[in-house]
Amino acid sequence: MEGHTPEPGEGPEAADILASTRTLVDPELRRAVDTLPGSLRRVARYHFGWEHADGTPAAGSAGKAIRPALVLTAVRALGGEPAGAVRAAAAVELVHNFTLLHDDVMDRDTTRRHRPTAWTVFGDADAILAGDALQALAQRMLAEDPHPGAPAASARLAACVMELCAGQHADCALERRGPDEVTLDECLAMAEAKTGALLGCACALGAVYAGAGLDAVDSLDGFGREAGLAFQLIDDVIGIWGDPGHTGKPAGADLAARKKSLPVVAALASGTPAAAELAELYDGPQGKPGSALDAERAARAVESAGGRDWAQVHAADRMSRAIGQLAGAVPDLEAAGGLLALAEFVTRRTH
Amino acid sequence: MEGHTPEPGEGPEAADILASTRTLVDPELRRAVDTLPGSLRRVARYHFGWEHADGTPAAGSAGKAIRPALVLTAVRALGGEPAGAVRAAAAVELVHNFTLLHDDVMDRDTTRRHRPTAWTVFGDADAILAGDALQALAQRMLAEDPHPGAPAASARLAACVMELCAGQHADCALERRGPDEVTLDECLAMAEAKTGALLGCACALGAVYAGAGLDAVDSLDGFGREAGLAFQLIDDVIGIWGDPGHTGKPAGADLAARKKSLPVVAALASGTPAAAELAELYDGPQGKPGSALDAERAARAVESAGGRDWAQVHAADRMSRAIGQLAGAVPDLEAAGGLLALAEFVTRRTH
Repeated sequence: MEGHTPEPGEGPEAADILASTRTLVDPELRRAVDTLPGSLRRVARYHFGWEHADGTPAAGSAGKAIRPALVLTAVRALGGEPAGAVRAAAAVELVHNFTLLHDDVMDRDTTRRHRPTAWTVFGDADAILAGDALQALAQRMLAEDPHPGAPAASARLAACVMELCAGQHADCALERRGPDEVTLDECLAMAEAKTGALLGCACALGAVYAGAGLDAVDSLDGFGREAGLAFQLIDDVIGIWGDPGHTGKPAGADLAARKKSLPVVAALASGTPAAAELAELYDGPQGKPGSALDAERAARAVESAGGRDWAQVHAADRMSRAIGQLAGAVPDLEAAGGLLALAEFVTRRTH
Repeated sequence: MEGHTPEPGEGPEAADILASTRTLVDPELRRAVDTLPGSLRRVARYHFGWEHADGTPAAGSAGKAIRPALVLTAVRALGGEPAGAVRAAAAVELVHNFTLLHDDVMDRDTTRRHRPTAWTVFGDADAILAGDALQALAQRMLAEDPHPGAPAASARLAACVMELCAGQHADCALERRGPDEVTLDECLAMAEAKTGALLGCACALGAVYAGAGLDAVDSLDGFGREAGLAFQLIDDVIGIWGDPGHTGKPAGADLAARKKSLPVVAALASGTPAAAELAELYDGPQGKPGSALDAERAARAVESAGGRDWAQVHAADRMSRAIGQLAGAVPDLEAAGGLLALAEFVTRRTH
C-alpha cells in the first residue's frame, strides 16, 4: 500500500476509511487479477498501475478506492461486518476498472492517472479483452463467495453494468451532437447512469452484505446515486474554474475541449445573452484542442449565464437528497458518519 | 421460431434437439435482451438477427443454438430436467454472442451470418457496449436464477469468459506472426481456448444443473472441449477444400486470406518440400485478399505435406477422446445419445 497524506478538503475520517479500505481490498484485488490468463494479466496489472509497460513492478496506485470504501462503509453503517464484504468491494473495483479500460478505447483518451492508457500501450484488442476479463473476474469473485448476499449482489452489479453501458452510449451520442441539440435533462440522466449508478451500486452492495432489507438497499443505492451526481456537478465546476491545489486539473480544460459539461449545458439553456455568446464560442468540433477556444471568455459566459450558480445549488440539492435517502435507512447518525464523510470527500475533489 | 429443414450430415435426432432447444430458449433470450437499455437493445436485436438496422422486425435466426442445446442435452444425459436449465442455456448463448460482437470489432470482420456486422452498422463503441451489456445480462440471468446450481454455473461461465478472452488474444497475436513463427501446439491451445472452452462450459453447466458431482461436471467439460477441437479441425478442412453443399463457404477461402488454420500449420511443420512451397506461398500479410495467393496450389501443397490427413486423423482422435470423457460420466449410452448426436453434428458442418 502506498503512503497517504491527507489533502485539503479531505477530512481525517475519509482519509482513514480510504486507507483502511486499501489495506483490506488491495491484496484481494491483486490476488484476483493474478488469476487472469498471462497475456491479459499483464494488461490489467499495467492498467492498475502495479506494473510498467515492460512488466517491471511499479509503485503506482490503483486509485483512491472510493467505491470499495463505499461498500465497506455501507456494510458497517447497516450493522454488518466489513471484513466479510471484501470480495464484494473488490468486485465493484474490478467493474469500475473494466469500464475505464473500455471507455478509454471508445473515447480515444490517451492518459489516465498520469500514465498512457492501456490501449495506447497494448492496442485496442488487448484493452478490450482485458476489460472483458475484468468484468468476468468480478462476477466470478461474487459467484465463488459463500456469503448469503452474494447472488443478490451479483444481480445488482450486472444490472449496474448495463446502466453504465447505457450511460457511456449516451455520453458518446451527446458528444456527437451540437451544443444546442442537448438538453440538461439528458445530460443529468447520462451523468446518473455513467457516474451515479456505480456509486449507488457500491452502497447497495454494502447494504446487501449487511443483510439489510430491500428498502434499505434501495435507499443506499439512492444515497450513492445522489452523492455521485453531486460529485459530477462539482467535478464539472472544477473542470471550468479549476481547483489546482486539490487536483492539478488546469482551469478551463473542459472548455478548451468544448466539453458539454453540466454547467455549460445549464448556461446554454438559460436564454440569456451570455448563453448566445457561449453557443457561438462552442460552435466547433468537441474534443479538438487545436481549434482554439477562448476558455477565459467562455468561463465568464458560463458564469454570467448562471451555469456556475446552478451547478453549485444543484450539487447542494443532490447532497441533501443523498442525506435524506441515507437518513431513511440509517437513522443513527453516528453509524451513517462514515458514508457522509465519503460523500463529502467525493464532492470536494476529483479522482 | 424459424422453420427447420434437416440438412445432409445432420441426423434427425440433432435436428430435433436443436429445434426443441430453440423453442425453449428463444423466448427466454428475447425476454432477456428486451430488458437491456433501449440504445443497446437495438444493437443486440440487430446482432441476433431479430431486427434490421432500422429497427424493423427481421425474420432472421440467432443461429443454430448449438451451445444452448449442449446445456439442455447434458442436463438430460445426467438425469436432470432440461426445462429447469433454460436460463443457463440462454446465459451461455448470451456469452457466445457477446464474444462474437467483440471479436468482430477486433478482427474488423464485416460479415456475420450473411449480414453486415454490428460495428459496421452502429460503430465500434456501440458494438463494444452491446457486448459488455450481453456479458452482464448473462450473469444477471444466473444470479436471479433460484436453481441451486446457479452460483457454480456463474463461476464456471465467468472463468470460461476469461479463457475465451485469452484465446482471442492468442488468435490476434498468432495472426500478426509469420507462418514460420507459429507452432502447432500454440494453434491447438488457441483453438481450445477460443472454441473448445465454451462448448465445454455449456456441457459442464448442464451437468451442474443436473446436480452432478464435480468429477462428472469436469468430464462433461472435457467432452465439450474435445468435441469443440474436432469441430475446429473439420471446419478448418472445409475452409480449405470446401463443403459447399453444407455451408456455402467457398473452397480456398481461408487460404486466400492466408489464414494460419490448423491443417496449414501442421503442413508447414512437416519438413517436406511441399511445406517449403507452402511457406513461400504464405509469405505475405495475412487477411489481405488483394495480394492474390494461388489457393488451388496452396491446397495441393497442404495436402502433399500431410496437413489434410493430419487434421482428419486428429479430429477423429479428439472425437474418441470426447466419447471417452462422456463414457466416464454417463455410462448409459442411451442417455448419452443426444450429446453424441450433437457432437456428430458439429463436426460435420460449420455455423
